[in-house]
Amino acid sequence: MNGAEAAIQSLRDGGVEVCFANPGTTEMHLVAALDAVGGIRPVPALFEGVVTGAADGYARMAGRPALSLLHLGPGFANGIANLHNARRAGLPQVVLIGDHASWHADADAPLASDVESLARPVSAWLRRAGPAPQLGRDAAEALAAARSVPGGVATLIVPADSAWGDGGRAVAALPPTVAPAPDGARVDEAARALREAARPLLLLGPQLLDEAGLACAARVAAASEARLAVDTFPVRLERGAGRPAVEKIPYFPEQVLEMLASVDLLLLVGARAPVAFFGYPGGASRLVPEGCRALELASPEQDAPAALAALADALGTAAHLPPVAAAAPPGLPTGALDPRSLGAAVAALQPEGAIVVEEALTCGLPYWLGSVNAAPHTYLALTGGAIGQGPPSATGAAIACPDRPVIDLQADGSGMYTLQALWTQARESLDVKTIVCANRSYRILRIELARAGVAEPGPAATRFTELSDPALDWVSLARGMGVPGERADSADALVASLRRALATPGPYLVEALL
Amino acid sequence: MNGAEAAIQSLRDGGVEVCFANPGTTEMHLVAALDAVGGIRPVPALFEGVVTGAADGYARMAGRPALSLLHLGPGFANGIANLHNARRAGLPQVVLIGDHASWHADADAPLASDVESLARPVSAWLRRAGPAPQLGRDAAEALAAARSVPGGVATLIVPADSAWGDGGRAVAALPPTVAPAPDGARVDEAARALREAARPLLLLGPQLLDEAGLACAARVAAASEARLAVDTFPVRLERGAGRPAVEKIPYFPEQVLEMLASVDLLLLVGARAPVAFFGYPGGASRLVPEGCRALELASPEQDAPAALAALADALGTAAHLPPVAAAAPPGLPTGALDPRSLGAAVAALQPEGAIVVEEALTCGLPYWLGSVNAAPHTYLALTGGAIGQGPPSATGAAIACPDRPVIDLQADGSGMYTLQALWTQARESLDVKTIVCANRSYRILRIELARAGVAEPGPAATRFTELSDPALDWVSLARGMGVPGERADSADALVASLRRALATPGPYLVEALL
Repeated sequence: MNGAEAAIQSLRDGGVEVCFANPGTTEMHLVAALDAVGGIRPVPALFEGVVTGAADGYARMAGRPALSLLHLGPGFANGIANLHNARRAGLPQVVLIGDHASWHADADAPLASDVESLARPVSAWLRRAGPAPQLGRDAAEALAAARSVPGGVATLIVPADSAWGDGGRAVAALPPTVAPAPDGARVDEAARALREAARPLLLLGPQLLDEAGLACAARVAAASEARLAVDTFPVRLERGAGRPAVEKIPYFPEQVLEMLASVDLLLLVGARAPVAFFGYPGGASRLVPEGCRALELASPEQDAPAALAALADALGTAAHLPPVAAAAPPGLPTGALDPRSLGAAVAALQPEGAIVVEEALTCGLPYWLGSVNAAPHTYLALTGGAIGQGPPSATGAAIACPDRPVIDLQADGSGMYTLQALWTQARESLDVKTIVCANRSYRILRIELARAGVAEPGPAATRFTELSDPALDWVSLARGMGVPGERADSADALVASLRRALATPGPYLVEALL
Repeated sequence: MNGAEAAIQSLRDGGVEVCFANPGTTEMHLVAALDAVGGIRPVPALFEGVVTGAADGYARMAGRPALSLLHLGPGFANGIANLHNARRAGLPQVVLIGDHASWHADADAPLASDVESLARPVSAWLRRAGPAPQLGRDAAEALAAARSVPGGVATLIVPADSAWGDGGRAVAALPPTVAPAPDGARVDEAARALREAARPLLLLGPQLLDEAGLACAARVAAASEARLAVDTFPVRLERGAGRPAVEKIPYFPEQVLEMLASVDLLLLVGARAPVAFFGYPGGASRLVPEGCRALELASPEQDAPAALAALADALGTAAHLPPVAAAAPPGLPTGALDPRSLGAAVAALQPEGAIVVEEALTCGLPYWLGSVNAAPHTYLALTGGAIGQGPPSATGAAIACPDRPVIDLQADGSGMYTLQALWTQARESLDVKTIVCANRSYRILRIELARAGVAEPGPAATRFTELSDPALDWVSLARGMGVPGERADSADALVASLRRALATPGPYLVEALL
């Protein structure tokens, strides 16, 4: 077999089931190898940001890496923003970049570039593959690196002659690096601190946000009367009726400081202490106020679930039942459509088991607040903060969980970054319902302008933050990519639209006109 | 004034007239400075690849840099592909990246990344700005670097506290580095070689492709009976009836070798010797065959027009009139729509003075061949090879030349990379006519698959190279962004559609169904 076949077989044997790709000339042997080896589902995308974002959503829901196939430096660069998100989320992903043949590098052909320099900032593991006989091992090592804790983007640059060269040899799955066991002394210290604290709060990292992790966190919370919280943009959180109530760290630094002012112990469980999303004039950088002790039970690189379980055991039987969200579903909104009624409509109608991808920005908080009691669901947020994550991440989540409905609650400005994902949803007949929060502006930037002291935006500030003139017509955009859709301009209309969307198999788009 | 105002005023005083942007929080003070300073036109885009691609088209036609405003590492990364093209074309562009406040860098906030590592591969000049009092000078130096020969991408990373900090001071325009004068001995050697050569060919670099450069090249060609050629993807070429006939280096390496097999002297005038666009098994890397002497008159970094003028003088009066394209316009096609009739229709109808942006890939050569005698026009190609350049480059060209019609002859697969440019065309009422070559496939990749030995593509190869199922509906996509459009499925229908498009002010899209 050639090098490409060895690489693909090594990945397949290691458990890779899906390949998202927008390949080019230097990946043709890798594409041919997908056919020769078989067993990996090919999912095309019309832009690389969709490729890497879909792999992000897939990893969040499948818990294992997909393969992303990208083309040279510029094609890879198009995928960087969503790889940045994946890096911040610690999500596994194997990226193969087809590069020029090694003997062609000196020629500095038009598409040649410094791929390593582009890839380093987003890659937890980065290597330029050796010749064909080594490519199987390179791929297996990339996969093991991606699957280590915390997971990460493993980027393998594949010279074309390594792919087409003879002498490839597939390599069986290599073991990922296992996260170190919890430190017993840390557990004891955390237990002691929790017993002594008057107003403790547990900040839960991404390893703890599945049902088992949350149940364990709830045990600790019950025994210690601690509040539970997650990062502003959690990687994945099980939420809704009957599940432990979990708060979210707010977005603006002064809000975080206010929230933590009432906390005397911040216990970090596989999470980092909060920092400001942006720095502001005269503002703070690290957001743990004086009088709040930050204590790390486990770092994101450690086995946080084991540490939390040990802590729960150390604390003993719960004195109180853990707080859970009420089972009463939220009511249906009526009247005008605004962020609150939009969030309420989605929360009321989202089916049990839904996966909600939330890149709604200024419409996100009203939905978050309104969906506490929604039917049990999985919530995925914009970890990393690079916009254009929603449509592709929803696409990948649907590939990972074909039996679960996926809802992409999507800001309009951000959605335009990767709208090409709608085509992949149509191509693959994915059950993704996109709800566009059409406020026709970069609303968050209007807020940021005000924070920058610009009370009355001038012509440039206005032109750079308004999406009107002409207004985007998302129903036409969706139709252009084979996705049916409709527009709603009141809460009642939105309720009717959402019901139609949820009753229609396959992708659907609702433009909610705010 | 603050640092941002000093930077913007320095750029404006240095001749920057347009700012393309998709700003975020860390650029709000720079946006506010655009309003405070005035005199720079703000042109918004809905994706950063449109920003940098529009600056590319603007620079090609205006001959000077625009300002691009990008957001942190991920926002910048979205613009890298078209910056790669600008780098390969040697086009000037000043890029300001708003980064986190310097005192916030240590916090490693979610959107923090290694911006320098991302920017280095595409930047001819790269700097992290100093504090506010230095920002004016930093901006002026960036502008001078961009305007040097060969032009380039000058990237200035602006920490937010440098932008908002006090004590800014605008700096008057600094002189760009002037390209070195031609080497007299080189000129003499080139003249001697041309006199001795039986079948010489002049390969003209980007500095020579305006009317003055081509006229000079035609004088040399007339005196020496040399053929004239340009790179496969010229930055900018004046073409059409009455202008010197210029060949193009073909795309595939074996075609280049065949073309140059009949050449005994390849005179490089501000151009590099041809290399393969991609390496193939058993193929060549550098494409100057034995028996063909490559001689450099001027490098792309030198003053190639002066060198060519000196050569023309050395060769003396022309023995023959230079070959020019006939004035007879090409005829209108009829019958089926295919790449040939599509190219013929555009060539026949394009108005005098049109700017033709050609990212048509497999439909590009038929148009090139069919438009030799078209009305005089300016031709811009996909220099650098990173797809998704056409729609934004056409947008920027229209901003630079508001009185000239712009035609974007656009492959469908590539167009999907940066379709958001259509909205900017509508927002700015630009006279851009987009003609989508809708073959509904990555046709070039089917050819590349065959070259890789895959005669019968398997399921993965098929899925990754077909754009059907569902077919893209470009008319709906355009409508979604406020651009009117229509579909044509025969040569006759296309002729009627193009006439309507050209008669309609503002942007228009014609989907040519192949």
